[in-house]
Amino acid sequence: MSIEFTNDSPGISDVPGFRVGAAACDIRNKATDRLDLTLVVADQLCAAAGVFTTNDVKASPVRFCQQLLAVSADKIRGIVGNSGNANACTSEQGDIDAAVMAKLAAAAVGSPTDGFLVCSTGRIGELLPMAKVAEGIKVSASRLSRDAAEGVRSANAILTSDTRPKSVTARFKWQGRTVTVAGIAKGAGMIEPNMATMLAFVCTDASASPAELKAALKSSSDQSFNCVSVDGDMSTNDTVLLLASGASGVVVGAAAEPSLRQLFQEALDKVCFALAEKIVGDGEKITKVVAVEIEGARTRADAEKIARAIGNSLLVKSSWYGEDPNWGRLADAAGYARTGLDENKLDILYDDVPAVLGGKPLPENKPRWKQVVKAARFAVRLRLNLGDAKFRLLAADLTDGYVNYNKSE
Amino acid sequence: MSIEFTNDSPGISDVPGFRVGAAACDIRNKATDRLDLTLVVADQLCAAAGVFTTNDVKASPVRFCQQLLAVSADKIRGIVGNSGNANACTSEQGDIDAAVMAKLAAAAVGSPTDGFLVCSTGRIGELLPMAKVAEGIKVSASRLSRDAAEGVRSANAILTSDTRPKSVTARFKWQGRTVTVAGIAKGAGMIEPNMATMLAFVCTDASASPAELKAALKSSSDQSFNCVSVDGDMSTNDTVLLLASGASGVVVGAAAEPSLRQLFQEALDKVCFALAEKIVGDGEKITKVVAVEIEGARTRADAEKIARAIGNSLLVKSSWYGEDPNWGRLADAAGYARTGLDENKLDILYDDVPAVLGGKPLPENKPRWKQVVKAARFAVRLRLNLGDAKFRLLAADLTDGYVNYNKSE
Repeated sequence: MSIEFTNDSPGISDVPGFRVGAAACDIRNKATDRLDLTLVVADQLCAAAGVFTTNDVKASPVRFCQQLLAVSADKIRGIVGNSGNANACTSEQGDIDAAVMAKLAAAAVGSPTDGFLVCSTGRIGELLPMAKVAEGIKVSASRLSRDAAEGVRSANAILTSDTRPKSVTARFKWQGRTVTVAGIAKGAGMIEPNMATMLAFVCTDASASPAELKAALKSSSDQSFNCVSVDGDMSTNDTVLLLASGASGVVVGAAAEPSLRQLFQEALDKVCFALAEKIVGDGEKITKVVAVEIEGARTRADAEKIARAIGNSLLVKSSWYGEDPNWGRLADAAGYARTGLDENKLDILYDDVPAVLGGKPLPENKPRWKQVVKAARFAVRLRLNLGDAKFRLLAADLTDGYVNYNKSE
Repeated sequence: MSIEFTNDSPGISDVPGFRVGAAACDIRNKATDRLDLTLVVADQLCAAAGVFTTNDVKASPVRFCQQLLAVSADKIRGIVGNSGNANACTSEQGDIDAAVMAKLAAAAVGSPTDGFLVCSTGRIGELLPMAKVAEGIKVSASRLSRDAAEGVRSANAILTSDTRPKSVTARFKWQGRTVTVAGIAKGAGMIEPNMATMLAFVCTDASASPAELKAALKSSSDQSFNCVSVDGDMSTNDTVLLLASGASGVVVGAAAEPSLRQLFQEALDKVCFALAEKIVGDGEKITKVVAVEIEGARTRADAEKIARAIGNSLLVKSSWYGEDPNWGRLADAAGYARTGLDENKLDILYDDVPAVLGGKPLPENKPRWKQVVKAARFAVRLRLNLGDAKFRLLAADLTDGYVNYNKSE
């Protein structure tokens, strides 16, 4: 009973029971033919769950999804998503526009209920060009299919400053049937804890109740999307959605055998973690992905605080960019997380090379750390030697390119 | 009864009862003649107080100062400070070296007690070159004077990546006598709340007990050094010291008239605030100083959280650098401070130009904000309209220059 995993898969078109379509409707008002709208449509009404930004300022589509899932999470028909405009900080008109997007999507596919989740990403504070959005929904609906090419177009349509689409598929067998879990995501800037300007749509042909899907998705998100950081900025639009068509005929909910439930959770974990990794790896103008591994903390919360202090420190991130193994900045950031660190017990390692053991620097190892930090991916490990709790954060370096890219929009 | 304030003064040499000396002893091991050691010496044993980093990882000199002030804050002879090496994360040898610096300083000035506070700033994780430090202390002691030129040399000797010395003097008259409060500071990187790689030495010829000095210094620091942020990194070495020689014959402690006590506090506030402003204005490779003013919060703590979220947001700071009035990023950062913001009540202004009122964007004002953000100094103001509390943070932009400067040491 193993999981077959495909990186850079076509994405949601892999999942029986769903069709996708995408369109270029120039939401950015830049007269380009860039893909910027997508529909994900279930053949039947299906169960769904979502995990959302905890930002006080939530974009209209986030509020819309939360309300829809609160009342009819078992009657979801699909997702309508756009890039280029976040529909955030757009006041009542933004709420109206999100609701209209759902209605237009439902009408375009002839859905008897509204039942569409809405996701937007892009610039904050501007109203959506609704005539263009309406056209995009119509075109997307006319293209709905399970073709791999359309899957790839759909994965592309949600991107903003991403440089490449992000899609993965996991499959496993259960009693002769195949269960598929596939997802697409977008990331790039504002990537932080508890999500970011990130969207991820995950679909499966397994069957489960909304509450069961929610629990599974929450568990996967906490280990994946909530453990990555590009720049420490949490967005107004972060959304992860999970839709379950049930087309495989395999029920993975509470009534299922524990080994099946575990297999499904593992497949979902793999999909979410791979998408999260792709988001960090494609962070705006980054050159390094660094795993910040905190071990031996008194509590997981302490370990997380330290990991985030390190992963979000401008000085640390700059030094990663410069390939300078500056462990002093790691110790400094770990200290200002103020968890009651004991510097005399602290070990700091680059991959497996110790730079500090029990608070004592090992300068003789410097040539070896210098090698480690030249890699595009490496780990910085802090062992606090105070307890058994740990946390792992995937972080990125900070580059002059990031600053110049974000100077203006 | 007004306070006479001198910007870019000679610094501590202005204060009767203190002499200063500085030396270049090549602590950086770079064979330069850069000033890197200074002594501040009181003519008599005096009272002192300090405010220190709250980082879990405290440099040896910070711990040394805290211990010294705990037992003999009324018998302080002076300060020995160095730049180029922070004596942080240096284990037991670091503690020994800090204590030896104090003893060497005391011996060099023929002090009957040790009584020297020790401050170091610079690279973390390397042992001090103690032979050079000893030589620097000897040379500094031989130069002790109240000459303005030596005052300026002393202000220069504590700098690291600062581009200019920071020193100010405040004076006021009381019953025919002049009271002086003067200070020097260094800043540049790792400048954040609750201090940073910042040192500030403030001396006065007023007289007060250590406890009275501590209260006055704490109050001033909370309104100044703790309200600035360059990069969100709090250092292991942050220290603000206040020494009172009493040479003016004016007693400003608890027994003094309220109007005198207030005058002294104001003078100290002015000195600390001016030094804090200079620190932000000379942050590493910055081009803008932005006052983040949060008003109408339920509590000061809420206002501070929002101010710091904005002042430390990479996306916000990058947009300041680009002179892009991106209020959406301000709203986003304010939201992820998670204070229970109501976006429909939120006003956002650039100086006095509203960009958002009651959650509604005012795009027609855009040409006017565009003008505001072109200035080297401006304010972003968020009125939450939820209560009466406020907080003001002085922050800086983030530049490609900062990243490149901090790529390696």
